[in-house]
Amino acid sequence: MNDTPTGTHALIDRAATAVTAHTRWVDDFPTPGVRFADLTPVFVDGEAFGAVIAALAATAPDAELVAGVDARGFLLGGGIAHALGTGVLAVRKAGKLPPPVNTREYSLEYGTAAIEIPQDSVRLRGRRVLVVDDVLATGGTLSATAELLDAAGALVVAVAVVTEIEVLGGRARLEKYPVTSLVRL
Amino acid sequence: MNDTPTGTHALIDRAATAVTAHTRWVDDFPTPGVRFADLTPVFVDGEAFGAVIAALAATAPDAELVAGVDARGFLLGGGIAHALGTGVLAVRKAGKLPPPVNTREYSLEYGTAAIEIPQDSVRLRGRRVLVVDDVLATGGTLSATAELLDAAGALVVAVAVVTEIEVLGGRARLEKYPVTSLVRL
Repeated sequence: MNDTPTGTHALIDRAATAVTAHTRWVDDFPTPGVRFADLTPVFVDGEAFGAVIAALAATAPDAELVAGVDARGFLLGGGIAHALGTGVLAVRKAGKLPPPVNTREYSLEYGTAAIEIPQDSVRLRGRRVLVVDDVLATGGTLSATAELLDAAGALVVAVAVVTEIEVLGGRARLEKYPVTSLVRL
Repeated sequence: MNDTPTGTHALIDRAATAVTAHTRWVDDFPTPGVRFADLTPVFVDGEAFGAVIAALAATAPDAELVAGVDARGFLLGGGIAHALGTGVLAVRKAGKLPPPVNTREYSLEYGTAAIEIPQDSVRLRGRRVLVVDDVLATGGTLSATAELLDAAGALVVAVAVVTEIEVLGGRARLEKYPVTSLVRL
């Protein structure tokens, strides 16, 4: 199911155990009927956070840059970038970055949203990028992120998330990229 | 000026040089008349990001938890937590965390904003916490963060930021805590 390099399976298993042990389930958040997987206790636990970072970093050991998706993806992106010795790019919700920016809209259940990356203030062409976020749900944000990076000439070498909500089918929107999730719900 | 442990000065000097070299200045953002210090190129550069993380982590080597302020503070918080081997707590803008939460309002130039931390899903009492963000401006967000953590029984052992806008006087609102900034503008 996961498109991972050989040798990372033990790291993923260890991280998955930590994630499952520390995830807090919250009913009716953010809307009635939804059961929210709160990863806060996972990230707060030093051992669990370290295991998650090690596993996600191992999915793209040759990445030259980590792109974290606004906002929880930043927590992971910062940690993974430190683990790999790379920098981290903040892929931001619209309006947060100073101009000039490249923007990509994507569909939400109701309406649209947009994400942005810098247009020319950072070099992306030819760079191997690992894209990270906490959750893969419908895949809208992550596929828009990958497309933005593609369009800027970057090479998206992997997409890695902590949890994947399989029923929402987001993986199908990322079929051009190797995708790894630690836990599938 | 900085309240730093002995031995971190070389790390801070090195990080300050990297920050100054890579900061991009943007006029009239986010509002006309404001000159914005865009740290994106600092964080994207692996060497600069590593230097920043090492310097900020060195301000509280005995921290047991890193608290990053929404949202750019998450990039730093994740990296510093990985460097220290601790977990990271996301201090969030209001409405982002599942209930129950503890909330603290603070003043903006016009109106108020609020930040939140989990009420009881993570243990904070007695834990040594390093608070990090990208910029210290008026100190509203950072002082509200420190107060929230204080109220939860945590020990805020240090506040560390990349850039400090001295004219805005934010340091005065954090006088209870050791504050380190890498670059003062």
